[in-house]
Amino acid sequence: MDEKLNYISRLFQRTSSKRIEHYVISRIWHLLDNYDIKMTPQQYVSRQQIKYALTDVYFPQIGFHIEVNEPAHYESDERIQHDLKRKNEIEANTGHTVFSIDCRQDLDGIHFQIADLVSKINNSVQEQIEKGIFKPWRPENEHNPDYWKTKGKISLSDEVSFHTIEDICLLFDADHSKTKRGFLRKGGIQNPKNPQLFIWWPSERPRSGWLNTFDEVKGTITETHSDEKKKVDHYNWHAQETHIRIVFFHYKDILGRTNYKFVGVFTNDKENSNAEIGTIWTRIGETLNVETSEYQREEEKTNANIV
Amino acid sequence: MDEKLNYISRLFQRTSSKRIEHYVISRIWHLLDNYDIKMTPQQYVSRQQIKYALTDVYFPQIGFHIEVNEPAHYESDERIQHDLKRKNEIEANTGHTVFSIDCRQDLDGIHFQIADLVSKINNSVQEQIEKGIFKPWRPENEHNPDYWKTKGKISLSDEVSFHTIEDICLLFDADHSKTKRGFLRKGGIQNPKNPQLFIWWPSERPRSGWLNTFDEVKGTITETHSDEKKKVDHYNWHAQETHIRIVFFHYKDILGRTNYKFVGVFTNDKENSNAEIGTIWTRIGETLNVETSEYQREEEKTNANIV
Repeated sequence: MDEKLNYISRLFQRTSSKRIEHYVISRIWHLLDNYDIKMTPQQYVSRQQIKYALTDVYFPQIGFHIEVNEPAHYESDERIQHDLKRKNEIEANTGHTVFSIDCRQDLDGIHFQIADLVSKINNSVQEQIEKGIFKPWRPENEHNPDYWKTKGKISLSDEVSFHTIEDICLLFDADHSKTKRGFLRKGGIQNPKNPQLFIWWPSERPRSGWLNTFDEVKGTITETHSDEKKKVDHYNWHAQETHIRIVFFHYKDILGRTNYKFVGVFTNDKENSNAEIGTIWTRIGETLNVETSEYQREEEKTNANIV
Repeated sequence: MDEKLNYISRLFQRTSSKRIEHYVISRIWHLLDNYDIKMTPQQYVSRQQIKYALTDVYFPQIGFHIEVNEPAHYESDERIQHDLKRKNEIEANTGHTVFSIDCRQDLDGIHFQIADLVSKINNSVQEQIEKGIFKPWRPENEHNPDYWKTKGKISLSDEVSFHTIEDICLLFDADHSKTKRGFLRKGGIQNPKNPQLFIWWPSERPRSGWLNTFDEVKGTITETHSDEKKKVDHYNWHAQETHIRIVFFHYKDILGRTNYKFVGVFTNDKENSNAEIGTIWTRIGETLNVETSEYQREEEKTNANIV
C-alpha cells in the first residue's frame, strides 16, 4: 500500500475515539491536499506517560502544533488558564506555534477556523519554498540510512527515523555486532567518527532497569535507574565531566513499527542533575554533520564548536 | 452540539475500523464541503444481517451509492463477478447509481477517483437545484412530525424518520394510547384518515415472535413468525385479499437513537407469499399524501389510484 496513505489513514484511525478531534484532523489533511506536508501525532510518548503529550497533531516541517479543544476544555477558568500556560510554555521553549480549534462552535464556526488554519499552513510552507528551505515529506528517505549517509547531515526537521539499531550503526560506520552483550542489547555505542560524541538510543520503556523520560517541551532527557546504587553511581560518574550524546529516541510509530528517531545532540546538565533524580541531558544541537561531528542549533547561522 | 457535526463525526467513527474506507469517506465529505448534502451509512440492517447491507455509503438525495473496495475485492475473479452482479442488481432494482473506489491504486489514484466522484455528486445536485427539486439536508425537519403534518406529504427522498411511535401517530392523528396492549406494544395501528392503509412499524429485531426482514434492493419486506401456527394463520389471513400498509421501518441510527423511517407504501404480494416463507410485502408507493392517502411512485408523474 502507498506509504503515505498507510500513514495518514492510521493517524486518522488513532484519533477515532475522539470523534470531533478526528473530524477536525481529517478535514485539515483533506483541505491542505498537499502530500508534501507531513502531519504527525505525538510519538515519543508511551501510553502511561500520556500527560507528556504536547499537542494533538504536529506539522514538523513548519513547527505548527494543533490542539483540538472539545467543549470540556472551556468548562472551568482553571482549565482555560492551564491550556494557556501550556501553550505559552511550548511556544517559548520550542519556538513552535500552537493553534487551537475551539469546538464549542457550530459546524460553520469550526469550518471557518480550519479554513483559517489551512491558509496559515499553506502560507508558511509557501514562505519556506520561496526561501528554498522547504523539505517535502519523503517517508521513503526518512527511514533510509544510506540516504542520510550520502547526504552527510541530519537535522531535527529531516524527521530521520530508523527502524533498527543496525541502521543507526550503518549511518556512523559503527560495528553493529558490538551493540549486543550476550542476550542483552546495549543502550548505545561509541561513535567511530568521533569518540567524544557517544551514540545513544534511549527509550521510555524500562530496559535492564534504566529509566528514561523525554520532555519534548524542555528538550531534556532524564536518565535514571530503578536500582538506587546504580542510579547514584551513574550520576556520580557523569557528574565528573562533560559528556555529549547523539540521540535516537525509541518509540513505536502509528504503524506499530519500532523507530529510533534523531532528536538531537545532548549534553549532561551538571547544574540540574543530582543523585536523587539522575542525569539530565539537555539538547545543544539540532543538526549534525555525520562525518565531522559538527553540530549546531537549527536556527543558528554559525556552527557551534565541538567541545 | 451541532446536529450535522454530531451525525457526520459519528458516521466517520463508525467506519474507523476500516481505515481506507474511512479515509475515502472523510475525503468525499470534506471535499464536497456542502452541508446541504446528506451522506448516510446503511441503516436498516441489523448487525446479524450485515449481508444485506447495500453499500458503504449512500447519498439519499441523488440516489448515489459508494462502494470503497479495498484490495481484497479484486483478489479473485469470483469476487469481482460477485461485486459486479451486486452493482447491476442494485442499479436495476432501485434506479440508483453505484460508484466504486478502487483502493488498489496509490494515493494519487485514489484522490483522482474521489475528485471525479465529487464532481459527479456536485453536478447531480446542481441539476436538481436547476430543476427546483433539490431537497437540502435538514435533520431538524426529518424527525419532526409537526413539520410533515404541515407539509401534508412525505416521500422516500425526504428521509422522514421519527424517534417515537407517538410521533408516527401524531402525523396521522392516530390515538397513540391504542398502540399499547398491556405491557406489549402493537406493531401498527389503523389509519384514522383511511382505514384501508394500515400504519405499520416493523423491525428486524424479533418482537413477540414476529420476524421481519427488509430487502432494500428488491424493496420488499418479509413478515413471518417463529411460531409455525401463527405463521401459517397470518399468511392465510393476508392471502385472502389485498392489504396496504404505510411502513415506518425501525432501526437504530448512528447516534444510537431509535428511529422509525418512512420506507414507502407496501402491499402483500400474493404471488410470492406462501405458508412456508410468510407474507411478502412489496413497495407500491414512495410518496404519500397524509391527508388523502394518495400514494405514488416518486418518479411517476400521475397519481396512482387508491385500491
